[in-house]
This record gives sequence, structure tokens and C-alpha cells, in this order.
Amino acid sequence: MKFNQSVQQDTSANNNNDNKVWKWHIQDPASQKLTWNKPPKSVLVIKKIRDASLLQPFKELCIFLTEVKDMIVYVEKKVLEDPAISDDENFGAITKKFCTFRDDLDDISNRIDFIICLGGDGTLLYASSLFQESVPPVMAFHLGSLGFLTPFKFDTYQSQVDQVIEGNAAIVLRSRLKVRVLKENWEKKARLDEKGIILTNGDTESSRKSVQYQVLNEVVVDRGPSSYLSNVDLFLDGHLITTVQGDGVIVSTPTGSTAYAVAAGASMIHPNVPAIMITPICPHSLSFRPIVVPAGVELKIMLSRDARNTAWVSFDGRKRQEICHGDSITITTSCFPVPSICFRDPVNDWFESLAQCLHWNVRKKQNYLSSEDEEF
Amino acid sequence: MKFNQSVQQDTSANNNNDNKVWKWHIQDPASQKLTWNKPPKSVLVIKKIRDASLLQPFKELCIFLTEVKDMIVYVEKKVLEDPAISDDENFGAITKKFCTFRDDLDDISNRIDFIICLGGDGTLLYASSLFQESVPPVMAFHLGSLGFLTPFKFDTYQSQVDQVIEGNAAIVLRSRLKVRVLKENWEKKARLDEKGIILTNGDTESSRKSVQYQVLNEVVVDRGPSSYLSNVDLFLDGHLITTVQGDGVIVSTPTGSTAYAVAAGASMIHPNVPAIMITPICPHSLSFRPIVVPAGVELKIMLSRDARNTAWVSFDGRKRQEICHGDSITITTSCFPVPSICFRDPVNDWFESLAQCLHWNVRKKQNYLSSEDEEF
Amino acid sequence: MKFNQSVQQDTSANNNNDNKVWKWHIQDPASQKLTWNKPPKSVLVIKKIRDASLLQPFKELCIFLTEVKDMIVYVEKKVLEDPAISDDENFGAITKKFCTFRDDLDDISNRIDFIICLGGDGTLLYASSLFQESVPPVMAFHLGSLGFLTPFKFDTYQSQVDQVIEGNAAIVLRSRLKVRVLKENWEKKARLDEKGIILTNGDTESSRKSVQYQVLNEVVVDRGPSSYLSNVDLFLDGHLITTVQGDGVIVSTPTGSTAYAVAAGASMIHPNVPAIMITPICPHSLSFRPIVVPAGVELKIMLSRDARNTAWVSFDGRKRQEICHGDSITITTSCFPVPSICFRDPVNDWFESLAQCLHWNVRKKQNYLSSEDEEF
Amino acid sequence: MKFNQSVQQDTSANNNNDNKVWKWHIQDPASQKLTWNKPPKSVLVIKKIRDASLLQPFKELCIFLTEVKDMIVYVEKKVLEDPAISDDENFGAITKKFCTFRDDLDDISNRIDFIICLGGDGTLLYASSLFQESVPPVMAFHLGSLGFLTPFKFDTYQSQVDQVIEGNAAIVLRSRLKVRVLKENWEKKARLDEKGIILTNGDTESSRKSVQYQVLNEVVVDRGPSSYLSNVDLFLDGHLITTVQGDGVIVSTPTGSTAYAVAAGASMIHPNVPAIMITPICPHSLSFRPIVVPAGVELKIMLSRDARNTAWVSFDGRKRQEICHGDSITITTSCFPVPSICFRDPVNDWFESLAQCLHWNVRKKQNYLSSEDEEF
Repeated sequence: MKFNQSVQQDTSANNNNDNKVWKWHIQDPASQKLTWNKPPKSVLVIKKIRDASLLQPFKELCIFLTEVKDMIVYVEKKVLEDPAISDDENFGAITKKFCTFRDDLDDISNRIDFIICLGGDGTLLYASSLFQESVPPVMAFHLGSLGFLTPFKFDTYQSQVDQVIEGNAAIVLRSRLKVRVLKENWEKKARLDEKGIILTNGDTESSRKSVQYQVLNEVVVDRGPSSYLSNVDLFLDGHLITTVQGDGVIVSTPTGSTAYAVAAGASMIHPNVPAIMITPICPHSLSFRPIVVPAGVELKIMLSRDARNTAWVSFDGRKRQEICHGDSITITTSCFPVPSICFRDPVNDWFESLAQCLHWNVRKKQNYLSSEDEEF
Repeated sequence: MKFNQSVQQDTSANNNNDNKVWKWHIQDPASQKLTWNKPPKSVLVIKKIRDASLLQPFKELCIFLTEVKDMIVYVEKKVLEDPAISDDENFGAITKKFCTFRDDLDDISNRIDFIICLGGDGTLLYASSLFQESVPPVMAFHLGSLGFLTPFKFDTYQSQVDQVIEGNAAIVLRSRLKVRVLKENWEKKARLDEKGIILTNGDTESSRKSVQYQVLNEVVVDRGPSSYLSNVDLFLDGHLITTVQGDGVIVSTPTGSTAYAVAAGASMIHPNVPAIMITPICPHSLSFRPIVVPAGVELKIMLSRDARNTAWVSFDGRKRQEICHGDSITITTSCFPVPSICFRDPVNDWFESLAQCLHWNVRKKQNYLSSEDEEF
Repeated sequence: MKFNQSVQQDTSANNNNDNKVWKWHIQDPASQKLTWNKPPKSVLVIKKIRDASLLQPFKELCIFLTEVKDMIVYVEKKVLEDPAISDDENFGAITKKFCTFRDDLDDISNRIDFIICLGGDGTLLYASSLFQESVPPVMAFHLGSLGFLTPFKFDTYQSQVDQVIEGNAAIVLRSRLKVRVLKENWEKKARLDEKGIILTNGDTESSRKSVQYQVLNEVVVDRGPSSYLSNVDLFLDGHLITTVQGDGVIVSTPTGSTAYAVAAGASMIHPNVPAIMITPICPHSLSFRPIVVPAGVELKIMLSRDARNTAWVSFDGRKRQEICHGDSITITTSCFPVPSICFRDPVNDWFESLAQCLHWNVRKKQNYLSSEDEEF
Repeated sequence: MKFNQSVQQDTSANNNNDNKVWKWHIQDPASQKLTWNKPPKSVLVIKKIRDASLLQPFKELCIFLTEVKDMIVYVEKKVLEDPAISDDENFGAITKKFCTFRDDLDDISNRIDFIICLGGDGTLLYASSLFQESVPPVMAFHLGSLGFLTPFKFDTYQSQVDQVIEGNAAIVLRSRLKVRVLKENWEKKARLDEKGIILTNGDTESSRKSVQYQVLNEVVVDRGPSSYLSNVDLFLDGHLITTVQGDGVIVSTPTGSTAYAVAAGASMIHPNVPAIMITPICPHSLSFRPIVVPAGVELKIMLSRDARNTAWVSFDGRKRQEICHGDSITITTSCFPVPSICFRDPVNDWFESLAQCLHWNVRKKQNYLSSEDEEF
């Protein structure tokens, strides 16, 4: 079974000339639904740690999932090690039923039917980082104010979770970026702590290291602590398209267009649009407007030959590392999006977030132009 | 035969839980090729009229197509009525072989294998307007400076045309907008000259008129000659998403993002991205950033209930008309894109245009930050 | 008595070399105070006509000024001709004490001690237009929501007016632009109704007309009803500095920077800064950023030689007129600012307006960058 | 002798009511001229060190000034210590006539008639930093491409220097910011190497340190190496006007408006405008447009109470230091501007720089709006 996300092309029909007709079938973004081949049984609950305000909702939710819905609940080991949970005798009986795992040791990728997040947008970024390949559908609750990635209110969590289990929910597939950092002479940068695949070519003098990330918001390349401009070359499908001189550059998903990119001046892109956004940060060129390229391209970023300083790269705000001459960052759209469960639907949820999180087009009604027919 | 333009989703594989895996296949935008089911025989040549500089190239091209390539050449009647052509005895013999037609009378939609345009970007907008349904592939020459829609230089037209006839060319499918204007009480606006379908409901008091357009760049709704702000409501899939107060609003295709929209502050979107851009014109709100929505949505624009003045709408800069209370403009992505033949490929052509037409990121290399290690 | 508005230079002190020392004395913008050489006796009350909500406040205010404060009240004749006022028998006795005048006939410029405005920002623009030379201090009340030009609430008008009469108020001097439109062959444009000085050079073939305006917000030159770009040359002190291609250009005072200019992308300038802002409207150039030039320059705008269409000019949104080849618009800072009485002081009033009218920097507190120390 | 820089107000004339007339005298920015009370005898030559391309021009210039113009030449000691100069026997005889000094030891502030800079814009920033109080007029040569601060070409340096010595030149007074950093508990930050005035209140637990800078371009407060947003409060004349959440904030002079501020989205301000520009860096608010306030205000920046991280401040790109809770940065316009000698005049030099350095409004002439009268 295959279906297209957005635009499909029909070239079957022939015209009188027997030559191809260029015609599209365009899919409604609201039509993507959560469907279960068999009822979901296992749920991963992700909770921001050391946030006392989340303890009670977390406990309530876990009891509901275990006792009422009879689900297998997965929780990270470190969440249960929090004294505020481990010391709670009443909750102790329930926790014994949980499946625990450790981020860096255990592979849970094929055991989870869906994910519930409790916390801010960062919780969902973290959930995304746990799944390098396919991601189960994610239901994200905001406990404080609405976030772009956390559309559900906790008040009515029971009925909301029921709806999800019954497959009665819309889905928005949030594209991710697959980023590969290739470092030359990586031994010199041994302070980095990534769990990466090490590629040794047997030559002790020029060994290379390649690390890969799945990014939900953005890859940022900037000047780091240097007070010089960063100076990086941007390649698209192997061609140098421009050089970025300024504080840096943001390569973001449509989801990330409303995060750091919007602060740097980007237009906001609905997560259903299959595209990659490229936004300069404080560019030293008046004409360096952000651009939006198709999801299917391959981008590469390297230091310019005449760059006087190194640059720094981070992934969804994490894993910040230095980029030196010869290193490269290769970015493509990942095959594995994050299926985000909608509160209402992909369109309404997004516009609600624009209004609540960014105060988009909040205004006082006013006529700035006085006119002759405004009479005196 | 069906294939998707950009992103395709594979849900066939099952995980251990037998639940769906959310996975995409993402298409390379450079992969779309011009293909002929059978060799092209008929070509429509479109020439901007009353531009003396185009006469010689036009004649040369027509002779080449007719005599050398043995093609059936379609030309508009009004082009041949130009004295500079009709009075040319040498060219007279050739013109007799042409098929002529009149825009407003003859339907040529199924008789043309491909189109050649001579002139500026306006020529291609005009070609698009001739085909309300499927559009044959278009090869567009710029005679002066490079345009976004006219990638071919005329110097080497013979070899270029050969390549196209041999099917040796990349294609970029430029999405169009299908726009329907629904007017209440249209008799009062009898000065409008559109060739529209008239919908009469038998009720003499509230007769309606509906007109439809295919738009390649943008629909513009603005305050027209009024010095008051325009005040229009914007609906998406039936929901009111915002009210535009300002000089107006631009709803554009990705192709149109580099036309009027870029002047109003939009980010530039590659034509392969299936999306619609919404850009306010001088909005009276600091926070009204442009947005990009999926190609599959339906937009509707109406005057706000409390609008004190009418608004005006135009389509690719033409057919300007007044919009009154109760009228509506409905916009969706058309099923019929314009297949534009690329000079090199969709990516290189676009970045070449950004550089040549918009001087995108042209800069003087400079360090704006002096630094302590800039020694004195 | 002379004093400088903002920055004063002291070159009296000499250094050891006996050469000039470049030193400034900089004035605090909050230090400008309303002062009366003798107690104010006459007040002009300006009321937006045909706005029923203003009737009661207007009557109350006039009674207070006449009966309680014993002031001579000036009112426009057309205000009193409004049936809602002329038919009010109770108010009739008071109106007989008013001095009335007609905008187009009577010169009141030297008879008014101060002005009170009731209405929106347009009321103050209108008050400004009544005084081509020096303007009495203006106290402007907003009846609805706060405006940039109308800082006073009506609730406590009695004590506020008392404070003003006692000279207990801060003043912000709002610079105006003196604009001269020089038209060639003006007979052809006889439909214009301005009261202008007619300059005839005795030559019937090329008679000229010059009209002059005092502008508080901005001069706008745009493409009017044309769908072509406007194309105008901008001169500064006689030098061509750039050509504006786009929807048009706004030349504004700092006061006008928060009106139409802000919608076109300008930075906001405090009214105390002696400067002129030049803001393009939807320019067809990515690099056409707005600029701010010193108050002392002379600007001139003319159609470019190769402009295919005329342009249109308006002054504070009024007196819209066509500009043809050869016509010119000359703009300098007027010697006659509008002394606006502050509610609190020039700085607090302005930031209050930025917040209330433009929602400047309204935001939701949020961390867009997730970080490694945001723990999970 | 006192005169105002830009706008002067005349309140001497009285109207019929004997109340004050608000009238201005506005000064032409081009009217400021270099004048010598007595012929200049001493010149400070500043050369960027370790730039081989400057050696020959530097030597030529010094020989010309010493031998031909009979001037006393001041040079920094470290410039002469460069082996490329100290080892040049031919140049040795000349250097013996120079007055040398060391930046950190010798006070030359009253001994210099004017300054000549050789190098980029950084050279002039450095020259500014040498004079905490009054600055002699500066003549700045660009050796490579034109800079905003370096208008003179070296080719014709002899005649240009002659003109300056004869007082035949225009001056633009570039305002500077006087910045005072007040640190609480500064011992903990002992790694900082500023030469500051130490204020000890005798209490060992809360000793304070105050350092002062003269800044020609800008003060930047940013998040430094932190990946959290910076969160600082901005006060104006003692009132909290807004909180900056984002990458940081730039407080710049008009001169600095074309440096880092322009990259962050500021409008460009001519150096003759007495103002201070406040520009957020990637603010997390769509409505945080840059603002321009009068030169006479006092700004203060402090960490917000709820800031989770420190911020970092730098001055013209130098002296980068950490700002902690309780520290404050106070900014006013300095009484001591930098008198920059113009190549032509303040207006032409600036627009030449806008074009050369920023490609301001560089464009391709084009009609983006096709129109019905563009005929086919």
C-alpha cells in the first residue's frame, strides 16, 4: 500500500496527439488518519525529568493506562529513579508493571505502538531523537501553555487517549532531516561524546569519523563563540549555490520553520509541505532572503576555503560541535517522519499554534490612512 | 500510470506489532523528464506583439520549425496581422503553412504538442492563460535578460529545439491556482467583460455569476484606488483563519513567490514544492509574517463584514475587478500545472534566476565584527 | 531665545594645539515643557463630524471651557451646523458664545492659544492641516482606543485641561514636512481642486502650477490604479540617489514612521529624532532597505525618464493627485512643527503607543532552543 | 561658540497672543566644515599591523608628511617594532623623527591635530578607542575596497592631504556611545583584563567594578556560547520598556546602523542623525521591529530576573565579557563624537558606501506585474 503525501501526478490519460497529459491529483492535508492494523497494546510515556509539576499528571496517566486501559507502559529507567517517584509507596505497585529501558542501551524501536509526551516542545524533540528509524505515532500534552508540538490539554486526557486508541484521530506527518557529519582527522576532536559509527581507513594520519542524526526542527551552523562572521559554502545536489557570510545558517524542516528560523526572519511553513527551509542568521547581505527548496534535494555545508575561523553545528539545539576545514554536513529529508497525533486536525492545530505561540497577525483594528471622506 | 511529485509514503511494511510503519519515499526534483509517447508534430509559437526586436527571431524560428523540422506551426491570428509580418513578402510563403487561431474563438487545447514562447515572463503567463485545462510543455526564450520563466537563450535555438524534440530535457511542473470568483447581484457590475459561465437561479433579485481562472503567478486582492485599508477575511478549508488589514494580500504559487510576493516580503519557494504562499501587502500588524500552506487546501477570500470599502482582485496582473460584500474568491491548486522545459534542470535554472533576476545574496566579502585578534 | 532640540555642539574649548575640540551637549528629550508667556485665553476645539459618540463629550467639554474656565472657544462652522448640535436647545445658549470660522475663508492662525482634539489620529492630522505656519500646542483626546497622536483619555478631562492651562505639561515637537508640488502644463489637470498659488510665466504653452502642503505623517508616491510598477527617481540635495521601482515610496516624518511606513517595513522612530524616513513600498529589489536621513536635507521625487506610467501622490492620505513627466515633488522639514501636549512625557507616551497600537514585542515567553541541560 | 548639529528651535517671536511660536531652524548636514584655528602641525598615523600590503603606502605617506609637509608624525611603538619596518635601512632615518607612544602608557590626547588611518573600517574603530574624550579629525584611507568609515582612495593621497591641511574639507561628526559596565562581585570575574576604574566600597563581600568605553559602532549583548535564549531587560530613562528574548540585542550609533545592525534587520541611518538604534537579534517575537530613539536618552540593560543564563557584552566587537545577575550596562550618547573627514560630503559619501558596501537597491529593471495593456 502506497499513497502520496501531497501531490500526485496522473499521466495516464492521453490527448488527441497521444502525448502525455500533465495532470495532478492533489491530496487534502486533513485526510491523513491514524489507523491501527490491530489494537495498540504498548505505549511509551515520556516525561521531562526534574519538573515537579509533571509528577501528578504522570502518575494519573500511568495508572489510567495500566489499570483502566490494560496497556503495557514503557518508561525510561531514569524517570523511575527520580526519588519523587521511587519513594512514592502508593505508586510503587504500578511501577513494577512498567517496562523500563535505557536510552543508550536498549532498542525499543519495534515494541512501541504509540508515544505519549508530557512536557514542552522539548519532550517531543527528545522522543524523536530516541527513534533513528521509524517513529510510532506521538500524542503530546502541554501542561502549561500550548506549544507547536504539544497540542493536547491534560484536563480531558482520558477521553482523548480513548479516541487515539480507537484510531479516531488525524495525523500530521512531520518530516525530519537526516544529517550526516563527516569529520576529517577526528582524533583531534576526541572530546566529542557522540555514539557514532567510526570509519577508519587504516591510515592513522587521516582517519575519518561519520556521525548521523535525525532532526525534527533544524540544523544550525553558526560562528559559535567567535566574533568573526561565519563563512560557509552551501551546496545543493552537488552544486555550490551560495556562500553564507553572517552569524550562520539554519536548515530547517517545516516544523522547524516556527522555531529558530522564524526568529531569523523565515516565513512559516505548514508541516504538511514537503520542503526544506534555508534561513541565514544575520547575513551580511541585504538581499539574502530565506528560500524554500523541495524535500528531495541533498544539501551540503562546508567551511569556505577562505574562512578564517571554524564554525559550530547543532541539531535541534543539541550535540553542539565544531566544524573545521574539510568537514562536511550532509542534509536530506529523512524517510522516517514523526507521526504527530492532532488535537483537531493538521490545519486547525497549526493556526491555533500560530495565534497562541507567535501572536501571528494580532492587531488593533485601525485605519492608518486618513482619507478625504473621513469628514470634518 | 501514476507517480507522485515529491514525497511518497510507504505503509506496507509492518513492524513487530503488526502496526503501520510511517515511511516515505522522497523523489528527486531533478528526475522529472520530458518524454514523448510519439514524436511531437505540432508547435504553438507565441510572440509578444508590437515588439520590433522579436520580429527577426520569430521569422527565423518559424522557418526553422516549418522547413527544417517539418512541424505544424500554430500562430495566433493577431500576430500575423501585424503589418511588419503581413507586409513581408519573403516571409509570406511560410505563413501560409501556419495554422492560425483566435484566442477567444478557437479551441486548440488538444492539438498542440508543445509551445515555444518568445518574449518576457509575460509571454508565458499569456500562454498559460490560453489553456484552462492541460497545458503542453513550454519552451520559453528570453530575448533580453534572463527571466524566471524564460530560461532559454535564443543564440543556439536550433540545437535547443532539437534536444526538446528528441525528448532530451528536464521538466519542472509549475503549479497553477484554480480561482473561482462568485459574484452576488452581478447585474450591477455589468461593466465587467469576462467570458464567464452565468449561473441564474431563476430569481431575478439575487442572480449570481461565477467566473473561473487559471493563475500561474498569483491572485492579488488589494484596496485598489481607495485610500482606506482593505479589510478581507481569509478562510482555509472553511475556517476563518485571519483577517487581512492593509494594502491587500497575495495568494501565490511557488512560481509566483519570486514575482510580486517577493516584493511584499515573502521567502522564495522553488517551483517543485507543492504549496501555496499567502503574503500580506503592507499589513497593519507587525506580526503578520507570510505563511506557506499545503497545495491541497482550499482558500476563500471575502470582504470582512465591517469593511468600509470594496476590494479589487487581479489574476497574474490581469482581469482586475471589484469585489463587493457577499462576493467570494475561492482558490485551490489546479490539477493542470504548466510543464516548463528546463534549460539545465529545475534546481540550477532556479538558482541562476535568483542570482540574475533578484541578485540574491550578492555581497561584498567583509568582516563586520572587528575582533581582538585583528591586531594593531 | 534659541535652544536646540537634540544635540548641540561646543567648540569653544581649545586643546593644547589651540585647535577646535569637537564636543556636544546633548539635550534630554523629556526636558521640553509647555510654557505660557501669559495665561491662555482662546482654545480651538476640533471634533470629527458625523460621529454620534463624540456629541456628549464635545458638549461637556465646551461647557466646561466656557462656563468654568472662562475661555474663548473657537469651533468650525460646519461642526455647529450638525443638526444634532444646532437642534439641541439646551446647548444653544452656549454655542452663541463660540467664535466660529470656516476652514477655507477665515485665518485663525494667530488667535488660538491651544487646540483640543476629540476623535482619532485623523483629527490631529486635520488640525495640523489648518495651520500652514506656526501651530498652537495640541491636546488630543482618544474617545475609543489609544492612538499614537491622541494620548489623553476623556474620563478625567477637567483635571487634564487644568494642568495644561497651568502650563504643567510636557511637549513633544512633531516635525512636519513642507512639500511643494510643481506641475508642468497644469491646465490639462484642471480637475484638481487644490487652493494653490498659480505661477504663470506668461508663456501660454508651458504654464506651471505650484502647490504647497504641510504634512505630519507622510507623503506617499505610488502607482495608483495602474498595475505597472511605479518608477520614480529620488534626489537628495540635488543628487540622484536611487530609483524606486515597486508599488511606490513613502517619505515620512518620525511621527509617520508608525503609520503607513511601519506597514511597509520601516523601523519605528521616536518623534523627537530630527530625521526623515524613506521607505519603499513593495520594492522589486531584495536590497532596498528603508533609510533614515537628517532633517536638514532636501528631497525631490520625479517620474523616471523611462517610466511607462504616471504616479500618484498623497499627503497624510489626502489630496491624491497624478504626477506626470516633468512634475516634481520637493520635500524638506518644515520650520513649523506640531507641538503635541504629552499625557505623561515624550518617552513614556511613545512606548505606551507602541504597545497598545502596534503590540510591539508582545510575546510568549519560551525557549526555542532545546538544550542538553534541559534534562530528560 | 556653540552651534547645533541639526535642528534648532526659535521661540523668540511672539504671536498676537503673546504666546510662544514653535519654530525651528534646521541645519544643512553638508554645512559642517573642517576649520583650523591655526595650521595643523602634528599627525597621528595609524596602520593595521601585520598587513604587508600596507607597508609601502605607510612609508610613502610618512615620508611625504615628514619631508614635504614638515609635520610631526606620531606612530605607535608597536608599528615601528615590526621587522618589516625596523629592518628597512632606507626608512630608518625617517623613523627617528617620529614621536612614538604606547597605547596603554602614554596620553597623546592633546597633542594630535589630526589622524590618518591606513586599513579597513577596523582601523578607525581602533583610532576611536585611543581617545576616550575629544577626538581629532580623522582622515581614513581604504587600501582595498571602499568601507563605510574609510572614504579616501590612496592613489591621490598627496593632493587629498593637502586639501585637509588647508582646511578644505567637509566633516561628518559620528556620534559615539558612552558605555558604563557596572559589575557586582567582580573578584569572581578576575580573568577580565580591562583597565577599569575600581570602585571598592570597603565591604569585601560586595565590591563593585565599573568600566567605561567609548563605542563608535555598537554595543552587542548576546547569549554567547549558551544555546538558551538571552533574556535581558531594557530600560530607557529609568523605565523598563521591554524585555529582549532571542539571540540578543544591538544598541548602535547611526554609524553602526550599517554594520552588525543592518545584518539583524535595521534600517540604515545617516551618521548625521542624532539618534540611537535598538535592534533585536533573532527575537522570539514576530513584532519586535527595531526602534530609533533620540540621542539624549539613557539606556540600561540588565539580565531579566528570570534569566536562566548569563549574557555576554562586547563593544565594537571587542572586550567581550560576561554579564551576570545584578550587573548593568548603561549607555548614553557620548559628548565626544569622531569628526570624520569626508571625501566629498556627508551625503554623497554615505550613499556611495551604501551602494558599494551593501549593494543597496541594486536591481534589474523589470515589470513584475503583467498587465492587460501588455499586448499579445
